Amino acid sequence: MHLIHKTRVAVKYFSIGVALMCYSSFYAQQPVDYVNPMIGTSNFGATYPGPISPRGMASISPFNVAGPKNLPLEKDSGWLSTPYVHENTFLTGFSQVNLSGVGCPELGVLLLMPTTGEVETNHLKYGSTYSNEISKAGYYSSTIDKYNVKAEFTTTKRVGVSKFTFPKGKSNLLLNLGLGLTNEEGAMVKIVSPTEIEGVRSVGSFCYYNPEDAYPVYFVAKFSKPADDFGVWKKPATYKGVEAQWMGYNGKTRIMKNNTKMVVGDSIGTYFSYDFNKPETVEVKIGVSYVSIENARENLEKETQNKSFDKVYKQTKNEWNQLLSRIKVEGGSEDDKTIFYTALYHTLIHPNTLNDFNGEYPEIKTGKIGKTDGTRYTVFSLWDTYRNLHQLMSLVYPKQQSNMVKSIIDMSDENGWLPRWELNSTETFTMVGDPAGIVITDTYLKGIKDFDIKKAYAAMLKGADTIKGNPLRNGLKNYIEKGYVTTDEKGSVSTTQEYNASDYAISLLAKELSHHKDYKRFKKRAISYRKLYDKDLQLLHPRNNDGSFYEPFDPNAGANFEENIGFIEGNAWQYAFMTPHDIKGLIKLMGGKKEFTNQLQKVFDDKQFDMANEPDIAYPYLFNYIKGEEYRSQKLVQQLVKEYFKNTPDGLPGNDDTGTMSAWLIYSMMGFYPITPGEPNYTITTPMFDKITIELNSEYYQNKKIVITKETNNNDNIKKIELNGKEFKGYFITHDELVNGHTLKVIQN
Amino acid sequence: MHLIHKTRVAVKYFSIGVALMCYSSFYAQQPVDYVNPMIGTSNFGATYPGPISPRGMASISPFNVAGPKNLPLEKDSGWLSTPYVHENTFLTGFSQVNLSGVGCPELGVLLLMPTTGEVETNHLKYGSTYSNEISKAGYYSSTIDKYNVKAEFTTTKRVGVSKFTFPKGKSNLLLNLGLGLTNEEGAMVKIVSPTEIEGVRSVGSFCYYNPEDAYPVYFVAKFSKPADDFGVWKKPATYKGVEAQWMGYNGKTRIMKNNTKMVVGDSIGTYFSYDFNKPETVEVKIGVSYVSIENARENLEKETQNKSFDKVYKQTKNEWNQLLSRIKVEGGSEDDKTIFYTALYHTLIHPNTLNDFNGEYPEIKTGKIGKTDGTRYTVFSLWDTYRNLHQLMSLVYPKQQSNMVKSIIDMSDENGWLPRWELNSTETFTMVGDPAGIVITDTYLKGIKDFDIKKAYAAMLKGADTIKGNPLRNGLKNYIEKGYVTTDEKGSVSTTQEYNASDYAISLLAKELSHHKDYKRFKKRAISYRKLYDKDLQLLHPRNNDGSFYEPFDPNAGANFEENIGFIEGNAWQYAFMTPHDIKGLIKLMGGKKEFTNQLQKVFDDKQFDMANEPDIAYPYLFNYIKGEEYRSQKLVQQLVKEYFKNTPDGLPGNDDTGTMSAWLIYSMMGFYPITPGEPNYTITTPMFDKITIELNSEYYQNKKIVITKETNNNDNIKKIELNGKEFKGYFITHDELVNGHTLKVIQN
Repeated sequence: MHLIHKTRVAVKYFSIGVALMCYSSFYAQQPVDYVNPMIGTSNFGATYPGPISPRGMASISPFNVAGPKNLPLEKDSGWLSTPYVHENTFLTGFSQVNLSGVGCPELGVLLLMPTTGEVETNHLKYGSTYSNEISKAGYYSSTIDKYNVKAEFTTTKRVGVSKFTFPKGKSNLLLNLGLGLTNEEGAMVKIVSPTEIEGVRSVGSFCYYNPEDAYPVYFVAKFSKPADDFGVWKKPATYKGVEAQWMGYNGKTRIMKNNTKMVVGDSIGTYFSYDFNKPETVEVKIGVSYVSIENARENLEKETQNKSFDKVYKQTKNEWNQLLSRIKVEGGSEDDKTIFYTALYHTLIHPNTLNDFNGEYPEIKTGKIGKTDGTRYTVFSLWDTYRNLHQLMSLVYPKQQSNMVKSIIDMSDENGWLPRWELNSTETFTMVGDPAGIVITDTYLKGIKDFDIKKAYAAMLKGADTIKGNPLRNGLKNYIEKGYVTTDEKGSVSTTQEYNASDYAISLLAKELSHHKDYKRFKKRAISYRKLYDKDLQLLHPRNNDGSFYEPFDPNAGANFEENIGFIEGNAWQYAFMTPHDIKGLIKLMGGKKEFTNQLQKVFDDKQFDMANEPDIAYPYLFNYIKGEEYRSQKLVQQLVKEYFKNTPDGLPGNDDTGTMSAWLIYSMMGFYPITPGEPNYTITTPMFDKITIELNSEYYQNKKIVITKETNNNDNIKKIELNGKEFKGYFITHDELVNGHTLKVIQN
Repeated sequence: MHLIHKTRVAVKYFSIGVALMCYSSFYAQQPVDYVNPMIGTSNFGATYPGPISPRGMASISPFNVAGPKNLPLEKDSGWLSTPYVHENTFLTGFSQVNLSGVGCPELGVLLLMPTTGEVETNHLKYGSTYSNEISKAGYYSSTIDKYNVKAEFTTTKRVGVSKFTFPKGKSNLLLNLGLGLTNEEGAMVKIVSPTEIEGVRSVGSFCYYNPEDAYPVYFVAKFSKPADDFGVWKKPATYKGVEAQWMGYNGKTRIMKNNTKMVVGDSIGTYFSYDFNKPETVEVKIGVSYVSIENARENLEKETQNKSFDKVYKQTKNEWNQLLSRIKVEGGSEDDKTIFYTALYHTLIHPNTLNDFNGEYPEIKTGKIGKTDGTRYTVFSLWDTYRNLHQLMSLVYPKQQSNMVKSIIDMSDENGWLPRWELNSTETFTMVGDPAGIVITDTYLKGIKDFDIKKAYAAMLKGADTIKGNPLRNGLKNYIEKGYVTTDEKGSVSTTQEYNASDYAISLLAKELSHHKDYKRFKKRAISYRKLYDKDLQLLHPRNNDGSFYEPFDPNAGANFEENIGFIEGNAWQYAFMTPHDIKGLIKLMGGKKEFTNQLQKVFDDKQFDMANEPDIAYPYLFNYIKGEEYRSQKLVQQLVKEYFKNTPDGLPGNDDTGTMSAWLIYSMMGFYPITPGEPNYTITTPMFDKITIELNSEYYQNKKIVITKETNNNDNIKKIELNGKEFKGYFITHDELVNGHTLKVIQN
């Protein structure tokens, strides 16, 4: 998904930054050392360079998207969805909760900022340039130029840990609760003592939807040194009307010294000031929670009690390394390893942990507080992630994937419906379709079954069959009766295709669960997109309510987010082949293998392929369906990786989409791809490392590992594939074959 | 004090209201039954008709000062300092914390409102007329016309208790946290369960001063019946800038159904909805605290647990009756008794309790939470109350007065300075002068000594002698050196007079404590106003820094709050005699008794006397200083009582000034008045009842009671006064003579 109104912006790299990155990665040895979180911080990748623990609730990002000095990529001047942009230079704090790789502004709040001298609360005045950025998995540091303060950051799962090295003299730590990336406003804060602050910040309205679901993030901040002086600031709204004449203070920022009472407002913050007679460090721990201040405090205490910054970082780094080491790659360049492990790192950020240390989490919609023994995950950008990210999780981190599916099922219990784009227990309803069932089916058919499949299946059917009051499937009546959503609805073709994909997953699961009638019914429903096929155009074409094709129709329209009848975030070309479960049917529709091949190649030749968005990201693999044309997939995938994925801030093709782009890269570099979401199958291309070892979780898989090797000869094309030393025919391999095999060897010509 | 920009407004009485009041008072027997809280709810009296317990923290007032239907007395259209105005008709809720008889808008928040039908959150739409008002001590009820809901209210000290009788059908209880009398904005709310809400509302900026001292009132609301449906509403600020185009919801009210998370905003509220299949009652208890939500909850639980509305009211009524019965009046009309006991009721509202049930209270300025075993009082409008209210408390409620003095001393401990106009542990610095010491001295010299007089004396000296950084006594250097504050400062004459009064009190206390040097020094300082006496005008005249009189000077200027060089809230006439401790000196200055008498009479003849403001309220008694002219005081006081104090909503001359006007009435009706603040003396006029019995507190006084009787003969003038059956010479009686006597008999000609 990329909701950004893309304006191409010249990316200015700072040579010192690049040099540093090269330096740090050159000597790296462990997988964790290959992570470069700067990748994706430009070109709308929407990742951030600051630390997070694996699937952490808390994260810290330098915040450099406010103020005219950051134009044009300034948060209030356009649609900007990230707290940090690499080419920006004006820093106004370090946000403590953030989303990675999303297309809409949200979170990016609780801005902690070190300053020196007199307290200044206006971010346009206290902001500063910065230098000496170091960005690693679980660690970020830079120097705040204006104040000569070194700022370092790490995290635990629910706590951001900051360390500031101040020069001698008056120093301040501001916690700005007004400024933020989110469009929501409003905060409450209370200074508990000279070492502790508690409060809440309103967030929500992701993608400018559902403001009524805006919600709070609760926090507790603890400081390693008691403030010599502290207070709250509040910039109230400007009062209009006759009384304004008596208000000398109208609209002006108030400094409330020593205030230890609750303060509420849209633009408030706290300052903790110190008077140091020598250079000193202050560590700040900020625990967060979506349940309560008490839980934020408990999270902080249980996760970081008595641990120094360095100890926390060491542990977090170790956690990352353990997870990243589940895949070991050998051969390839240092940059190849860097983009690979950074991508794996990006897939381990979202979905992230929602529950507190004590297991509590806000249920979706009920207003109740739930409790889990495992992990309640959140931030499910399912329209994106159903295509490949969850497939990667099932293979490499099946325990996590199982908990993600459990979280999805729990949501349907709470909410009455499966999620589409769930964010901190709110359903944002971003994008279209009903993708959760695809993830459930895909997981189950891969043998990960430790969840309530009956309940899940019932929820899938409810979403598929409820005509009235169905929040997931608009236009469902027409879809069921006519086979397609009509132009009465936005994005009618795309939506039909999404429903087809979901229905296909239902049919697969129905078969597995021996619901034969459902199996047949949904198998049939799953290919109804065919009714939208326009022979003349060899593309899908939106149909009106009366069955006629919508005219006039321009298959090229829909680039750059123009409003485009029939399609969501794309045009007819970018959706034409998005029927991964019925490619054989599509080949027939198109008139045969040659016509299919030509039309598919045309997408690339005419530059209709969009690497940055999900509908067509499986296209490069589709040549594998045509015998003799597989080399095109092998070449294309390698070309695309080379063109779009780099060890530079603009090294992602666009929004990472909570790891979907990164998952694409990982599979592509490993030489196989989950071609049909819901089906436990992969299609094979050329691995980009000499050897890839995937460690398997013994709780779910019999084998300990899969080893993929590549024998490189004269040319890139694959000559032969061997599974466990025996020749493997074709370019499609089932999940079972893969995980029960020991070695997969790809031999090039 | 009356800070209102007075615009005389025609007061339309509703005959039905008057009839009801007459009815209820005619059959009354007990003192509590004579209380008519409607008195003062018009003519800027700024009292409210809803219930409060004696010196309660919580109180409930119908709120009818918002919206164009209430023009001209609408809160945003002028300087309006009261949540209720009798002639207004459009009700938008019932506020749960209120100030009585003050001159600036503050509190008047936490608006509880019953409605029926669909939830409407806009007060301009949900507001209603009302009828059948019944207002008694501890009880108020009315019918909300639009919804046919009967609303009844009572209180405990820290809890507002409401009872709503709804018709069959859909009913709602709104808690509006946006609308309020205060000019502060911002609230946090959290629905804890279908029977409980907790939250906080920002208040402060009393008199549009010191916004940095804005503070929260915490609350917990409990409902007797669980809501069938509930939610929070929020009307966010309107977002400007480019993003507004994506915000379909920009600036629109959001209804957040089932929301149980913290919501923060300037304009928020909650609704609890019911679907009744027959008429039903719901009781709502709202506990408040200035310390924390936890304390608000504890206040609620400890004070009202399991008590029905009716039981709470019975207890509160009984508490009122006990206190009011300390003075028993016999004879006089029913209206006389009503205005008397209502005045006594009004003197028992402020200062009010600040500490929670557990003794905790917010300290002034420190940010700390203090704890008391007794009562921590707040709302000290000392510029007003030093003149007579505390004198009344010392006589009738000495235990309360002792705790008030202790509270004042504790404030100086916390704050470093004695209070001037303290409000919920903020120093508002409203008005001028340094009056706390006068109250302390007056109390101590009346034999109420169970507080730390040494500490108090030290604090008084600090205020009197600190030149630099003295927040109480601006212009002090000139005052000490020249004898007066110069025109460099606002209200230089008034301020000089206030300092004189305070210095006189210091001299009295110094004498009592045998600090002879201080005694002499302050006795001298106390008469420095004489240097401002202008022989030509026979008035006080502001002096410039060079010693010259300020010219041009108009002694009549300063009415209706015109800016007036030299004087605060008044003109030269209204301050000319405000030297109660040096009337003999003033007589000399004016050239003798005759000249003094003429000049004083001129104030009344020329209608310069302002019954509604404090500087001149002792004037009517000053004829007692001139032998043979005492009849003038006797007549004047009776005239003024008759003219300004009535059993009608406009039955107070203006702002009640937290009971100061009421205390004036009580003393005036009892036939004696504390003529010199700080001095334990009274001057005598004609009692307005046949018999007055004041019960004395045995902890402080030997006698059980004082009985004052009047023997009415041919004419009103006093012929003779007898103390304990023996003739008493003169018109001045000491506090000791009074409290140690048994009977005071006033015999008319």
